[in-house]
This record gives sequence, C-alpha cells and structure tokens, in this order.
Amino acid sequence: MLPLGMRVHQKIMHIIKDAMDRAGAQEMVTPIFHPLSLWQETNRDHTAKFELTILTDKRGVQFVPGGTAEEMFVDLVRKFQLSYKDIPFNVYQFSNKFRDELRARGGLLRVREFVMKDGYSFHEDEEDFKKEYKNMWNTYVNIFERMGLKTYAVESDNGYIGGDYCHEFVVESEIGESRFLITEDGSYAAHEDVAKFIKDKKNVDEELKPLKEIEAKRGTTMEDGVKLHKLPLWQQIKDVLFVDGSGRFILTIIRGDYDVNEIKLKHLIHSTELRHATDEEIREKIHSEPGFISPIGIKEKVEKNVKFIIVADDSLRTIKNAYGGANKKYRDLFNMNIDRDYNPDIQGDVAMAKSDFLSPNGKGKLIEKRGIEVGNIFQLGLHYSKKMKGATFIDKTGKEKPYYMGCYGIGLGRTLATIVERFHDERGITWPSQVAPYHVHLIGLDFSDENVKKRAFELYEKLRKDNIEVLFDEREDVSAGAKFADADLIGNPIRLVVSKRTGDKIEFKRRNESKTELLTYEDVIKKIKEINVQ
Amino acid sequence: MLPLGMRVHQKIMHIIKDAMDRAGAQEMVTPIFHPLSLWQETNRDHTAKFELTILTDKRGVQFVPGGTAEEMFVDLVRKFQLSYKDIPFNVYQFSNKFRDELRARGGLLRVREFVMKDGYSFHEDEEDFKKEYKNMWNTYVNIFERMGLKTYAVESDNGYIGGDYCHEFVVESEIGESRFLITEDGSYAAHEDVAKFIKDKKNVDEELKPLKEIEAKRGTTMEDGVKLHKLPLWQQIKDVLFVDGSGRFILTIIRGDYDVNEIKLKHLIHSTELRHATDEEIREKIHSEPGFISPIGIKEKVEKNVKFIIVADDSLRTIKNAYGGANKKYRDLFNMNIDRDYNPDIQGDVAMAKSDFLSPNGKGKLIEKRGIEVGNIFQLGLHYSKKMKGATFIDKTGKEKPYYMGCYGIGLGRTLATIVERFHDERGITWPSQVAPYHVHLIGLDFSDENVKKRAFELYEKLRKDNIEVLFDEREDVSAGAKFADADLIGNPIRLVVSKRTGDKIEFKRRNESKTELLTYEDVIKKIKEINVQ
Repeated sequence: MLPLGMRVHQKIMHIIKDAMDRAGAQEMVTPIFHPLSLWQETNRDHTAKFELTILTDKRGVQFVPGGTAEEMFVDLVRKFQLSYKDIPFNVYQFSNKFRDELRARGGLLRVREFVMKDGYSFHEDEEDFKKEYKNMWNTYVNIFERMGLKTYAVESDNGYIGGDYCHEFVVESEIGESRFLITEDGSYAAHEDVAKFIKDKKNVDEELKPLKEIEAKRGTTMEDGVKLHKLPLWQQIKDVLFVDGSGRFILTIIRGDYDVNEIKLKHLIHSTELRHATDEEIREKIHSEPGFISPIGIKEKVEKNVKFIIVADDSLRTIKNAYGGANKKYRDLFNMNIDRDYNPDIQGDVAMAKSDFLSPNGKGKLIEKRGIEVGNIFQLGLHYSKKMKGATFIDKTGKEKPYYMGCYGIGLGRTLATIVERFHDERGITWPSQVAPYHVHLIGLDFSDENVKKRAFELYEKLRKDNIEVLFDEREDVSAGAKFADADLIGNPIRLVVSKRTGDKIEFKRRNESKTELLTYEDVIKKIKEINVQ
Repeated sequence: MLPLGMRVHQKIMHIIKDAMDRAGAQEMVTPIFHPLSLWQETNRDHTAKFELTILTDKRGVQFVPGGTAEEMFVDLVRKFQLSYKDIPFNVYQFSNKFRDELRARGGLLRVREFVMKDGYSFHEDEEDFKKEYKNMWNTYVNIFERMGLKTYAVESDNGYIGGDYCHEFVVESEIGESRFLITEDGSYAAHEDVAKFIKDKKNVDEELKPLKEIEAKRGTTMEDGVKLHKLPLWQQIKDVLFVDGSGRFILTIIRGDYDVNEIKLKHLIHSTELRHATDEEIREKIHSEPGFISPIGIKEKVEKNVKFIIVADDSLRTIKNAYGGANKKYRDLFNMNIDRDYNPDIQGDVAMAKSDFLSPNGKGKLIEKRGIEVGNIFQLGLHYSKKMKGATFIDKTGKEKPYYMGCYGIGLGRTLATIVERFHDERGITWPSQVAPYHVHLIGLDFSDENVKKRAFELYEKLRKDNIEVLFDEREDVSAGAKFADADLIGNPIRLVVSKRTGDKIEFKRRNESKTELLTYEDVIKKIKEINVQ
C-alpha cells in the first residue's frame, strides 16, 4: 500500500474503529501466528476452506498464520475466570490475515495477505447474542454508508466458520464474486449458496400412471429427453451423481427445470468435499449409464463394496408421472413417482434459486444480483466454546456453561477496492470525501512568475494551518495538462489551482463536476467544509 | 495486547507517526511475507542474526515472515524509474515483525512477534543521507521525550543490517540488555560491542631485552602467571584461540589487562561465527598447550591442513618485554616483543571497553551503563542498492547510480514495556499522561444511594462530552479499597471519585501524588487540561 492508498486505508480503519467503539466493542490484538494445536482443538485444521500453511519454529512447535482468529480469542478469553457479570462483551482487532489462495484476483479483492477487522462477542445465551447481532448489523450498515457504500445484508453460508446462520454485507457490482437473490422490496436477500424459494406445484393433481420402460434413442442431455418425448422439462428427473471425500456415491435427483446447489447438498449430507462421478465410475461401479441414470432399481446394481445413497430434492413432490433414464443405454422410464417407485435416503432442499423464482417470504419474485462482499456477521453459537475445553463462564446459578458466541468481519483492502469500483470514471478515481487521501489537490502553475509561486506556497501553508489535508503539486517541469490529468487520476474531491490567470483568487473545482469557479480564500474554506460534512 | 494496553500501543504509534510525518516521511506498508528470493539477492538468508523461518506456499514458492524489510522496500522502489528529482524520500511502515528467538524475555522486551516502525530513506549520495540521518536522530530524541523517556544515542554495531555506522536509542535501565559506555558529559556514547578507548602507554620506553624461555610450574589463568612471576597483569600476553564458521583457527592476542571483544574481532576478520577452541583442538591440531599458548613459533607447530592466523590487538604496541606461555606445558617466555619476535597476520582494535577506561574523544573516563534499546538508526550506504539489481536512479548527468540508503526502526512493544519499567511504583504503573490508556480513572462509590449513582453517571457523560478519555469503574459489588487498588494498578494519571462523602464536588487525585482535593467540575477540567499539556 503506497502512501496515498495508505491514507485511504487508515481512514477506512478509523471509520470502522469509531463505529465499533461507539457500538460498545473494545479493540485489542492477538498474534498473527497461531499455535496449530488450537486449530486442532476445533478440527479446523481439516475443515477450513483455505489450506493452512504450517510453519515450524526452532523448538519444533507448529504454527499457522491466521486466516481468522476464533480459536485465538476463545483461547485468550478462557484464561479468565468469567462470570455472568463479565459478559456480554465484544472484542475486535485489525490484523493481517493470510489465506493461501491459488488465484488472487481483482487487485485488492482477493489477495493472500490482507488486513481484516475481526470482532468476537461472548454471551450468556442466544437471546443476548441476538441483540449484539442486530447491533453489529446496524453498525455495519452505518460503517459502509459513511464510506459512501450502499450494502445489502445477504443471508449466506457459514462456510468454514461454523455456526448456523450469518449475513454477508454486499455492495452491488458487476465484477463481484457474490451472486445473491433479492426481492424487489429487499425484504428477502440471500446468497445463491443458501437462497430458498417456493417450488411451485406442477401436475400434482394428475393420477398416478403405471411405470413403463420404453426405447429412447437420444443423447445424454436433459434437452435430448424433452425433444424426444415432447414433454416439459420440469417433468423430467435430473439425476446427478456425486462422490464425496470419503468415496461415497451420492445420487442427487431433482425436478428437471432446477439445478442442484452443491453447498446445500454438502450441508444436507454433512460432507465438505464433492465431485462429479466420472462416466467410468457410473458404468463400472454403479453399473448404470451416463445420461440414463434413474433412482429406480439403481441400488440393486451398485457394486457391493461401494457406499451409495439417494438424495431427493423436495421439488420431486411438486410433480407426478415423471420421466427419465432407466439405468440402461437408450432406455427411459415413464411415470416415475416418489414413494411408490423409489424411496430416497435423504429428502430436503438442494435446489439452486434463480431470477424469477418465487421468494420464500411471499413478497414476489427473486431478482439475481452480483456484488462484492465487504463484511460479514456470523452466529457461532456454542460451536467453539463446546469444542474448546474450559471456554465457559459461571452462570447466575453457579453452574459452568459454554458461552454463546458471534463473530464479525470486515476486509479493509476489499472495502477500499470496492469504493474505487463504485466511485470512478474514465479519468480516474472519484473518492467520497470521507475516505479520500486528501481533502484538496492543490495545483500550482506558472512558477516562472515568482509572485504566483509565492501565492501557491502561501496558500498551501494556510490550508494546512486550517487543518485541511492538502496534496500540493509543486512540480515545475510538468505541464498544466499533465497536472490536471494526475489530479483526476488520484481523485481527491476538490481541485484548487493557483496560476497567473487566477490573480488573487483561487480556481475551485470539484472532481465530480466540470464547472470551475474563481473564489476567495474564505469561500474556498466554506466550500471545503460543506463538502466534508456531507 | 488487551484493550488497555492496546490504547497505550496506539498512543505510542500516534506519537511516532506524527513525528515521522512532520519530519517529511511518508507512511505506507509492505507485506509481512517476503519472497525468500529477495533475501537471497542480498545473501541475508545466510547473514541475518536471526534464523529465517521458511514457509512454502501451494505453488511451491518460499516465503519468510519478515524480521526487517530492507529488501522489500528496495524491491518496491526499484520498480519505479527514479530520477534525481524523485529523491530523497523517506518511507516508513508500522508492521508485524517476526524473529524466532529461542528465549523470549522481559515481558514485551524480547518477543518473537512484535510491531515495529521501520523507515527507509533513499538518497543521491552520503552527504544528502547525512542530513536525513541527523533529521531522524532529532526526530527520535523528540519522539521518546514526548513519551517521557530520556534516551542516549549510542553508537552501535550494524549487525545483520549491513552498512558502516548506526546508533541505538537507549533508555537507562537496570534490566536492559544493552551495555554501553558513555562519558560524563555525554559527548561520547557507544555500545560495548563497538566502544573505543584510548589504550594508555605502559613501559614503552624500556629497552628490548633478549627473549628467554624459563620453567613455569603454574596454573593456566592469567592470575597464575602474575602470581608466579610477580609482574603486572598488563605485561602478560593474553592468548585466546577461536575457530570461525569455516573451521579456521584465529589466535587472538591482547594486553593482559584487556579482554577480547568478539564483535570487533568478527568484523576485523570478516567472520559471522566464532567459538572458542577446545583443549583437545589446542593440543591435537595446534600442538600447543592450553594456558601456555604463545604467538612465537606457533605457526610452525600447527597441523598442515589447518588454516591458522594470528590477530593482534594494537594494545600490544603499548607494552614491551611481555611475558606469557611458550607453547609447552610449564614453560613460559619472557621479553616477547611485537615485530621482533612475532608478526601478526592482522593488527587492529579488538579490545573490550570498560568503566574507567579513557574516552576516545579525550573527554575523560568512560562510565558503563545498562539500558533498553528502544530504537535505532542505520547508515546502509550502498549495501542493498549494489546487491539488488536495478536499485538505481538517473543522476543529473543522465548516469544510472545506486541510491544511498538509511533505515530507522522503533519497536513499539519494547517502548511500551520500557515506559512501564521507567514509570511504576510498588502499587502499579504510573503512566505519563501522553501515553496513558485514559486521562481519567473515575470511581463511583455508594451506589446504593440513587443520587450518588446518578451524579457519577452524569459526570462520566459530561467528561466524555468534553473529550476527556475516562475509564469508569461503576462496579457495584466491589469495595472502595479494591477499586482504589485497581486504579493504582492500571495507573491512569488522574483519579476522580464520586461518593456520598464528596457531596456535589468531585475528589481529585493524581496517581503520582498522595494529596486528594475536593473540586468543582470546572476546576477538575482545568486541572486535567494542565496535566495533559505537560
């Protein structure tokens, strides 16, 4: 981070700190290198999304540079003999985090080393935690607003953190990695990983027809089935065969017009890793046929030593007399019906929400948006305090209880990059004044005229005395055009020019307007203050 | 760092930042993980005092968590096409540093992970650099003064950093690791590693007497020689045999009343590692005798394949007709004289300065002190820019030249610990107001009286509105005595008490005075402001 970016970074940090302190949180800091043994206590050395980078010290003790710091904070807090009188509290830090991402992208959006504000709160129970969750929610909305960013609080996957629910704060952006679904009124917003929707009923009033197998000389795609049988896509069963980390096969079946959401599937079957089965595996281990898989009779075909389960999306209850493969090449089944013809081992919601699907809260259709995640808040519940020995407090009745926890993160570099993404034009950045590197970009021209030069330097000193942050371009061998272009590129909110032409006045221009004005010093100061209050 | 310590840490950081910015330096930040390849460019992967901890990422690239950041800054700066117009500049950062020290000690004094302010300046030549060296010197004196610390700028060893000269800023302290020598008037101050002194002439007017060997049934210490021959210690030759990293033997000889300074010796012979030779090595490889080594004739005795040199401290020119061993058990030589009887391979200053020795600047005797090093400034010269390809600028004549560099460090945790070391009494810390966690420690008592409780909470809010930093002890189940003890322990400079007894006034007490006063709110504010201006 070079000097100009550093100033923005610090202003972002200051806004976050100010809001966190006002919200009653307290800043502290924990080491960057975490003993690996702490991550082993919670099994996160195996379940973290990012691979841990392990480092061995001279004594042979293993450490990991921290990607998040739940274990470190719990380990610190459990060293104190806490009673119910000592909680709740919320402690946070700004510190470097490390994730060995294979693909860094989008400038500062995804890097391997970055500064994160991470906060952790400790509570007696869920009820008390929920107050702090709301408090942090409001604090986050306010923090991003102060930087000029409108955020959506989007329900999302808890991922490697643990806990039951969490929200991402997302800024809408074309280049964002986060895809989320939201109602027009914003009353429901959820990341595609977890978004729910109402699965509309199709032909549920139809009578069950007898199952029959027919010849089906078709290709292996869903469309091939639709074309051959001239039946709707939704009436077809989509069969997707996965293999999880333990080598277990998972046949996932869903209504033909829906897609499988792998995140939902992973949660439902408690697996952290999934991959698609290969054609060879389908033929040799399952004894079925790619493109012609069917839940009916498949279990009898599977090789003896192969673990195999069927997971059905509940959308299969919204259709009757479905069609699809027959576990043999060029053979299809008609009139497949759940319960009557096949019984899944697990049933649930494993469908991917999409634009125009119905919002689960009944407030109309979902709209798909892309955005950049700048912050997140997590319910952790008892996830860490139950796994880590001694992470307890003494409650009012004198009993030892694990504390109920939450955690709250903001990525500073990502936030900075998102502001740039949101505030720029073809000439450069257009910083909101709250986070601009300087309030004012002062350009001096015509320095061959000693009088003009003197006026420019005097103005610079005067502004500094009045506590205005000024970047002064006093280069003598650079053209006016180049100086103006640099001012636009850097993007401080106000440009001032002193030149032969400005006489004893000062040329004033806002970065995001084209109008220039000749003003007195007093008027300049007034305008600067107005803009910085906004 | 817990919340109270964090506040002190941040105030220290703020004082340093403010002074660095005023001195014309600019803050930025570089990554914590350095590519190992950069350290290889300067060979510091072999020469750094601390062992590098190497970490391999997913792609197989090796990184080290940085202990200092010279290579990182040079690598950044060399990416720009600099001309003489762009320099000088001084860029600094606050960032976590890592050194895998086997023995952490003294709380925060020596830890493996710590925040350091490190700055790097880039210049056309030494003359320009020297201005910045002086500028930083003054800035450092000022920084530590603002924290209540009197520092000595002590000439010291450049160690693993490279370059020719440097100064440590040392706070006098019994528990300090740095031993330094200083004249009473402070005109000369140097770390024992590098301190020079005037070697007084002894019997230089004596005639050279003929060399003779005699029987010497004595022990192996210097004192044994003095006792047997009844001659002064200074007339005896002290022989110390070292082995360096390459296996070379170094016979170091010095006047008997002086000790060998291994740091000086390492620099003189360009070795980074030294150890004492064992008795077995002295007998079997050198064919001499422990306690009876002599420079005379020893080279003829050494095993053929053994590398061996003689290094003489120049103090051997201040004595004549010296005595000492004869490379045989129970045999000593008398009247050994340099040049006539033996010719060292290297001559120079390898003597350890001590209390009462004469200052090299002629300003009286040296006094030995101990202290804690809180900062340092280094001349780097062309050390890095010559080793790192492309670390150049275009000078006025259009020629490419390596830049001349300096670097400037302050350890924040050490500084904090040093302040505590300097400002405490038997009851706790007595923070100087500039770095105290809070200006005021407010204690509320007698809260069973609703009126008193209300007054205390009102006072807390009023102080905060007046921008006074207050720590409010509003615990209801803790005794007055315990609250007073905690206030002393934490050590904020002012204690205020609201209780039944204080009526509509406020009890005011300074941490470092025992007197209490009953004051009005206005008088309290006035006093707080006076104390915070100091």
